[in-house]
Amino acid sequence: MAVAFPHLISAEKPSSMETSLSSLSPPPVILTQDELKKIAAYKAVEFVESGMVLGLGTGSTAKHAVDRIGELLRQGKLKNIVGIPTSKKTHEQAVSLGIPLSDLDSCPVIDLAIDGADEVDPYMNLVKGRGGSLLREKMVEGVCKKFVVIVDESKLVSHLGGSGLAMPVEVVPFCWKFTAKRLQDLFEDCGCVAKLRTAGERQPFVTDNGNYIIDLYFKKDIGDLKVASDNILRLAGVVEHGMFLDMATTVIVAGELGVTIKHK
Amino acid sequence: MAVAFPHLISAEKPSSMETSLSSLSPPPVILTQDELKKIAAYKAVEFVESGMVLGLGTGSTAKHAVDRIGELLRQGKLKNIVGIPTSKKTHEQAVSLGIPLSDLDSCPVIDLAIDGADEVDPYMNLVKGRGGSLLREKMVEGVCKKFVVIVDESKLVSHLGGSGLAMPVEVVPFCWKFTAKRLQDLFEDCGCVAKLRTAGERQPFVTDNGNYIIDLYFKKDIGDLKVASDNILRLAGVVEHGMFLDMATTVIVAGELGVTIKHK
Repeated sequence: MAVAFPHLISAEKPSSMETSLSSLSPPPVILTQDELKKIAAYKAVEFVESGMVLGLGTGSTAKHAVDRIGELLRQGKLKNIVGIPTSKKTHEQAVSLGIPLSDLDSCPVIDLAIDGADEVDPYMNLVKGRGGSLLREKMVEGVCKKFVVIVDESKLVSHLGGSGLAMPVEVVPFCWKFTAKRLQDLFEDCGCVAKLRTAGERQPFVTDNGNYIIDLYFKKDIGDLKVASDNILRLAGVVEHGMFLDMATTVIVAGELGVTIKHK
Repeated sequence: MAVAFPHLISAEKPSSMETSLSSLSPPPVILTQDELKKIAAYKAVEFVESGMVLGLGTGSTAKHAVDRIGELLRQGKLKNIVGIPTSKKTHEQAVSLGIPLSDLDSCPVIDLAIDGADEVDPYMNLVKGRGGSLLREKMVEGVCKKFVVIVDESKLVSHLGGSGLAMPVEVVPFCWKFTAKRLQDLFEDCGCVAKLRTAGERQPFVTDNGNYIIDLYFKKDIGDLKVASDNILRLAGVVEHGMFLDMATTVIVAGELGVTIKHK
């Protein structure tokens, strides 16, 4: 797809905080959401240099970036890459592509991580974890020098929770109903509804860490995100939540009108 | 033991915030630590009334309280008790005693919880979890109307961490070395050393929730406990820590000179 739409893949890296459209000509065809994801992913991989330790994200957008890294390694255009996968799924994908892997225990400093997001607000705060890998993603992406987020334009929101889709919270299975109720009560004023994520009929979705996911849906803006974050983390039974605050250093957005890159 | 040392088991419930010695006469024999634990436990069970939903603690001190509750139920002196165990071990003990049980999902409001602690500071803040059940204990004891803590006097400290023994943190097994390092770095100024808890040779201790325990040892006072708590909880990979702040409503201390009861 990078070949099909080379005019969208600009090497320009704006130095200002402002959003900039890197392509001015309209695309020749209407792009699918997956094509947009791929465009953002390929653009992000341009930031990768030989010798880097890389955080490898999880999800439909990050998958394209991991594929591209594998391709560049095979072609000899990248060398001495070490990947730190953020899920068992990405681990398998990277192994199949021959990307050398390590983990946080051996490589506690990561040069660059590339991952998708479910929501991006104007301050580059994120909701992640609809794919269920929020904990490992947060562990890896919390210690990388640069964190490049790749999304199609449908993921942009005015405030986190604003898409009306889930804000996930990973909880221990023990008395999850009780924890779900406490989470819902915590955001009662925002019209919060808490639901257990399922995988098939009546089966709870289980994370790579053996935990459950409670999806929170908000009717109103939840206000100060750092306060909300601490309040969630203070509930015993909560392992982690899907808000990634002040973590992204670059956001790449692929839309019908081109690729937008925003730096912190 | 309640029969052997009836002079230590005073029914007095001081109404002031101040510590009070409820026994003035010295004990006739030197008591073992386990005998002191039992005295505190029996005293706590005097707060139990028929019809209560009870949080049942875990550990060598709480075990005596659970035994005593079972005994009073058998004798017909207590009726319509529902117990909420804080560990698989306490669950088994309560079942063997015939105590009717439920869980937080069914009984989210608890009248009274009784549990031991590893450290108690002058403000009734606690360190718990050397037995490994800190998460379930915190879930249960965080929602009880009254939380009675029972300790022998060796558990009193001037500040949390002051005993030189472990302050436990429950973490996900995934990259636990990385999380242990981050915990140690967080309290670097306090001379913190982080160690994985083991069970037998080279085998990590595994909690009821399938997680590991990192034991933190401090050389110096860690300062503001609420700040320390939030900083620990903000680390991705941490599930819960063993500081129980502003939770205890009563502390019962059994010592060589008698039983001390402190209310909040």
